[in-house]
Amino acid sequence: MTMDRVQTYINENKGRFLDELFEVLRIPSISAQSSHKEDMVRCAEHLAIALAKAGADVAEVVPTEGNPVVYAEKIVAPEAKTVLVYGHYDVMPVDPREEWLTEPFEPVVKGGRIYGRGADDDKGQSWMHIKAFEAMCATDSLPCNVKFMLEGEEEIGSPSLYGFCEENKERLKADIILVSDTSMISLATPSITCGLRGLTYMEVEVVGPNKDLHSDLFGGAVANPANVLTRLVASLVDDEGRVTIPHFYDKVRVLSCEEREALNEAPFSQEAYMKALDIAEVEGEAGYTTMERTGIRPSLDVNGIWGGYTEEGTKTVIPSRASAKISMRLVPDQDFEEIGRLFEEHFRAIAPASVKVNVRFLHGGAPYVSPTDMEAYKAAERAVEESFGVKPLPFYSGGSIPIVSGFERILGTKSILLGFGLAEDAIHSPNESYGLEQFEKGLQTIPLFYKHFAK
Amino acid sequence: MTMDRVQTYINENKGRFLDELFEVLRIPSISAQSSHKEDMVRCAEHLAIALAKAGADVAEVVPTEGNPVVYAEKIVAPEAKTVLVYGHYDVMPVDPREEWLTEPFEPVVKGGRIYGRGADDDKGQSWMHIKAFEAMCATDSLPCNVKFMLEGEEEIGSPSLYGFCEENKERLKADIILVSDTSMISLATPSITCGLRGLTYMEVEVVGPNKDLHSDLFGGAVANPANVLTRLVASLVDDEGRVTIPHFYDKVRVLSCEEREALNEAPFSQEAYMKALDIAEVEGEAGYTTMERTGIRPSLDVNGIWGGYTEEGTKTVIPSRASAKISMRLVPDQDFEEIGRLFEEHFRAIAPASVKVNVRFLHGGAPYVSPTDMEAYKAAERAVEESFGVKPLPFYSGGSIPIVSGFERILGTKSILLGFGLAEDAIHSPNESYGLEQFEKGLQTIPLFYKHFAK
Repeated sequence: MTMDRVQTYINENKGRFLDELFEVLRIPSISAQSSHKEDMVRCAEHLAIALAKAGADVAEVVPTEGNPVVYAEKIVAPEAKTVLVYGHYDVMPVDPREEWLTEPFEPVVKGGRIYGRGADDDKGQSWMHIKAFEAMCATDSLPCNVKFMLEGEEEIGSPSLYGFCEENKERLKADIILVSDTSMISLATPSITCGLRGLTYMEVEVVGPNKDLHSDLFGGAVANPANVLTRLVASLVDDEGRVTIPHFYDKVRVLSCEEREALNEAPFSQEAYMKALDIAEVEGEAGYTTMERTGIRPSLDVNGIWGGYTEEGTKTVIPSRASAKISMRLVPDQDFEEIGRLFEEHFRAIAPASVKVNVRFLHGGAPYVSPTDMEAYKAAERAVEESFGVKPLPFYSGGSIPIVSGFERILGTKSILLGFGLAEDAIHSPNESYGLEQFEKGLQTIPLFYKHFAK
Repeated sequence: MTMDRVQTYINENKGRFLDELFEVLRIPSISAQSSHKEDMVRCAEHLAIALAKAGADVAEVVPTEGNPVVYAEKIVAPEAKTVLVYGHYDVMPVDPREEWLTEPFEPVVKGGRIYGRGADDDKGQSWMHIKAFEAMCATDSLPCNVKFMLEGEEEIGSPSLYGFCEENKERLKADIILVSDTSMISLATPSITCGLRGLTYMEVEVVGPNKDLHSDLFGGAVANPANVLTRLVASLVDDEGRVTIPHFYDKVRVLSCEEREALNEAPFSQEAYMKALDIAEVEGEAGYTTMERTGIRPSLDVNGIWGGYTEEGTKTVIPSRASAKISMRLVPDQDFEEIGRLFEEHFRAIAPASVKVNVRFLHGGAPYVSPTDMEAYKAAERAVEESFGVKPLPFYSGGSIPIVSGFERILGTKSILLGFGLAEDAIHSPNESYGLEQFEKGLQTIPLFYKHFAK
């Protein structure tokens, strides 16, 4: 049987697959830092060559205003279904650097896990697709047309990919977009992500006196921008954990009792969750479970805050300015641009006359939903059931991949979010890792998806 | 008349006094930088020789664990009153070096002002005392016993002087300590500093999950230490600008209506103050004027705050921890150590169970008050009235000179803060300067103080 040949090929070559992945992981392709500009190009070229070697007829590095997009395709038959694989080769910055136990860009395997920046997100997951594609090509068992689109700006909000999609609508035509950039509940409880939260990411600055002042001489008489910032930011969420921005909740889709029940069916241990994070209590919007808080409710987080003297020792300064990066996770049908406007209006409205405020929209993305009655969802469900031995649960993730709703809007194509990550992968954190078992399960599942989807 | 002879001597010699001051200003005695260790000793020796030449019977450089103390004395009669002059020969670092328009350690006179590091703080002000002492000795008109104690560590918190005082209580016995290390409101509105605020400087850290988390996945379900920090810090000051720490105000000395009226008599333009700082409104404790807010009321300022991602661009992280440096300006009779304890207790009490907090006391100093009914205050008041032609106002400064409260505690001696600085002297900043008129007014006023105090 074809599938046996594919799986045999994977088994025989998985050691090499891993060595090759390590080469990719060694490229420090951090999109947020302009000093890594050349690494981005190097990584894109490396992947295009890998796709050509894997069996693509076309494999290109397409320049954009930002980092290049890697595009590849193999058309097996005009009438066959077409799968567009999306992934990203850029990674998050590595700070706090000192908390890494190994070099972030020198991957190692320890305790059955690959450690390194991008091991999961999203180099590790993208690599499974390239290698599954290679296995199907090599065994002459590719049942669908396949297109690859790997971008280098996902972690900074995909600023160039929207334009790339606009300009390449014809070329990117597909029946489904296949994305592995999400997580499962656990290997024992596999899941397919069917909801993603959106995002509005803002930066605020509170400006007080025109220079830093001595707090001995001015303390108590002049608005201190750092004090004011804490006041303004604290007021954005009330005691019930609700965001206080007027009209913030207006468009939030309210789930039915049945839907909420289904969502809470997923096995989840609050105890284990708190233990894993070493916290004594969870905190969030009153009246919702942890699963609901991250799955179906919006939230507001301070992602960064800074101002004044932050070195060793003391300096009695009233800083002239203080800033914060604040992001809001959105759910259907919140509009990320509208939320940005509401945030800005509200922040300006609550600022006291004693300071000036600057508010900037940094980036955003719409929330997304994958209906569980889609053909692709059903194909993914069968594939996971065969490889894991358990039927996967639909999962509402707290995460967002803003470009996924962009795909639907620009290309008119739905995405299926078949990710193999786990919470313990620590993506975006020091010591990111990806389990060898996850890598292998992914390699095994992807060809099964193609098989079921092709029918 | 004796005083005429003194003033004549000063007038005839003031050119030389200035040349000699320049020699002192040329020594880069920066206490904060260990590379200047030898300059400290050189400066101390230079001053001891100057005091001996000026007429002291004893003039010594006394080693300490840190920089030496210059001690000198002249006893005119056992029954005469004794004045202990305190000053410091160390200066602040000169950074940002590039903002100096002239060499910091090559003094020049421009537009009637002496430019150079230490021109005011405190070499210029200390030199007036040495030269006034010389003038009184040379004209045989010194009416008091005089002791000098000039330290080399004021700008780094006087770590050795407390011990020096403990060990030399007998020798340092005096009726008053005379200090010129403060400023006046203006030459047209001379003032005597009668209150200095104290300080308690804390650092707090809010610790949440044991690692940075992806805000997509966890946002809304886990306490974000940066959000919690803003909440806790914001809550430390209420809507009325009052510090919310229980018992914080218990020991705050309440001034009488008359005292407050006197304090507010000082000419002060709120408009000019706001314009200079480029702010549209002041902010502080309700019910108090700006002069009162910095002079007689305690305050709480965030001096630094940091946590999460603070670089360019975006990172959707829930930081594992977030911190702030927070200092409180204190007034009589608040105890800086007690305030530190109250702060810590309160901060721990208000932290939610969803986070841990760490609280550290970084440093502190007691507030100080010179009662305006002291003999020495009245003598200073008369001296200033005679030399300036205007009765000086009592002035409550927001600043602190921690050692002054140390003197009272260790030696049991009050200080009189008869400073001739002005706000435009830019002490601690580039282009520090001291007006020739201030220098001359000081020289003129000091012997008058001795005359009136001797009676």
